Amino acid sequence: MNSLLTAAQYPLDLAGIFAFALSGAFLAVRKDFDFFGTLLLAEAAGTGGGLFRDLVLRLPPAAFTDTGYCLVPPVAAVVVFVLRPTRRLVSASTVCDAGALGMFSVTGTVKALEHGFAPLPAIALGVTTAVGGGLACGVLAGEIPPVLRWDQDLYVLPALVGAGGTAALDAAGHLDLFSAGCVAALSFTLRISALRRGWRTPRSAVWKQQGEAADSEAANPHRWTSPNSY
Amino acid sequence: MNSLLTAAQYPLDLAGIFAFALSGAFLAVRKDFDFFGTLLLAEAAGTGGGLFRDLVLRLPPAAFTDTGYCLVPPVAAVVVFVLRPTRRLVSASTVCDAGALGMFSVTGTVKALEHGFAPLPAIALGVTTAVGGGLACGVLAGEIPPVLRWDQDLYVLPALVGAGGTAALDAAGHLDLFSAGCVAALSFTLRISALRRGWRTPRSAVWKQQGEAADSEAANPHRWTSPNSY
Amino acid sequence: MNSLLTAAQYPLDLAGIFAFALSGAFLAVRKDFDFFGTLLLAEAAGTGGGLFRDLVLRLPPAAFTDTGYCLVPPVAAVVVFVLRPTRRLVSASTVCDAGALGMFSVTGTVKALEHGFAPLPAIALGVTTAVGGGLACGVLAGEIPPVLRWDQDLYVLPALVGAGGTAALDAAGHLDLFSAGCVAALSFTLRISALRRGWRTPRSAVWKQQGEAADSEAANPHRWTSPNSY
Repeated sequence: MNSLLTAAQYPLDLAGIFAFALSGAFLAVRKDFDFFGTLLLAEAAGTGGGLFRDLVLRLPPAAFTDTGYCLVPPVAAVVVFVLRPTRRLVSASTVCDAGALGMFSVTGTVKALEHGFAPLPAIALGVTTAVGGGLACGVLAGEIPPVLRWDQDLYVLPALVGAGGTAALDAAGHLDLFSAGCVAALSFTLRISALRRGWRTPRSAVWKQQGEAADSEAANPHRWTSPNSY
Repeated sequence: MNSLLTAAQYPLDLAGIFAFALSGAFLAVRKDFDFFGTLLLAEAAGTGGGLFRDLVLRLPPAAFTDTGYCLVPPVAAVVVFVLRPTRRLVSASTVCDAGALGMFSVTGTVKALEHGFAPLPAIALGVTTAVGGGLACGVLAGEIPPVLRWDQDLYVLPALVGAGGTAALDAAGHLDLFSAGCVAALSFTLRISALRRGWRTPRSAVWKQQGEAADSEAANPHRWTSPNSY
Repeated sequence: MNSLLTAAQYPLDLAGIFAFALSGAFLAVRKDFDFFGTLLLAEAAGTGGGLFRDLVLRLPPAAFTDTGYCLVPPVAAVVVFVLRPTRRLVSASTVCDAGALGMFSVTGTVKALEHGFAPLPAIALGVTTAVGGGLACGVLAGEIPPVLRWDQDLYVLPALVGAGGTAALDAAGHLDLFSAGCVAALSFTLRISALRRGWRTPRSAVWKQQGEAADSEAANPHRWTSPNSY
């Protein structure tokens, strides 16, 4: 499947980076960063996950060795910065972001498998590739990354479906361009459905027992000491 | 000592990763993250320090190449997520965390020395291995990592004792499995004593002169401009 | 130019790391961190950008392989921690920080070009080398890095001038020690002028239309959904 993927990979990668970079740039504008802050956040969101993947795989990081990869996030930053970010535009960007999530969770896992990683580490790297840019972006912007919060819709689970499905297909010997595309589409559909229907993941038993009505902050009574104090 | 360490290393590493991952998962539950957020934080806390060490040493990062390393943090996340995190459980986890702190500060330094690092850089890498997971975890969770705050008990100093002791033993030619274990135990004991007795490190002279009574926030009058403004 | 740069590089690098480490240590003291927190922040600010550059270039990271690089940030931390950080001292440190910004944006780009990077990726890496330490430091300290905020004076633009000028000189075949020094001086002068005159970069059109009077927080009405929700 490698040769097939390679042919289609580059333009798809650029599109995925553009989608993630848009999300990062929207976050930057919402946080009222200046143009260069928007640029940095678009770069972090667009190329952060792939950069992390390449560092772990010890490859020359494409985010810094390829001019195209480098150039796409600034374009996204300019688009967001000049255009008025309407609700419609942000919605469109969220759909694109979901597509990139599906794609990178599959291609990240494929890359790891091609480098001889065992299935479980390959899945972990695929998920990190897909969610890494959003994590980096949230941390830089001084927000708890939405990926982590229970009051946000499913994000890691679609990535896990994409990465896990890819590893399962590979183990079964059925991984080709078509089946990989189907897994990416499944991951994308799951993310979009979660967004439309507000699907969320369970919180810890301790919070659920304290009553769902209390909001996230109020439900945090610090009744036990911090994990780092005795 | 290399062969001796190697024999005992793998199960000890898994135990240390489990201890750090527990701390990360407790933090995630305290911050009311969902299950996948807890998973990510457990991975970051458990394997973050070792991942950073392996990237610096330019080794294949064990956190992503070894199935065991990859699998332990999710187990810790499930344990924390399903169990009700009682005060007793958190206390037990803090003791385990101190053990992992002692162990990783020693093994991180040993790994760096084995790769031909000079003593001081090896100590720096050993300390970073030990505290890196907690730093990554705190940053992702949107908290100032407790490692940095003056109102938290000693954390870097025990790591420094572990790493420095290892480098000193190596320089003296007395580094073997027994002496390395003693240094790790010393580091562990220092951390536990600091926790029990509330030992803290000094703050800057400027704050001490402004009166200890004022709390951390109030004592921050922004009397001088930010280092980044003129 | 390589041999010329190499001769002058090491002491200049140490001076630049010291300047960045001072900025990090001042931030740590302002945030009321303890001594070891100050140490970690000084290390992150001083060597973070270069560490990132070396990881991307897949070189042994000098921040951890060279004793001098390792030792300079602790010295800065001790200086800041013992001395009373007066306004005059912070101002002096800001000027030094601007000098380091100019220098690292040039030397980071040169290093990337020497490793065969195309001009645009080399510029991106040069800028990241120059601003990376400040980013890491801000994130660890739980602050939105000033680099990103519109209400801070120009920081990325001087780095971009330094990196872009270096790449342009290299493309024109005129990159030598003298011309590289001139570009670094230009970058430094731009940063200092921005600080003195309060030069800032534009915010997004959407904020400007909502009236400049409203402050950054109030101007953030969350009128559209977060980029990560639908």
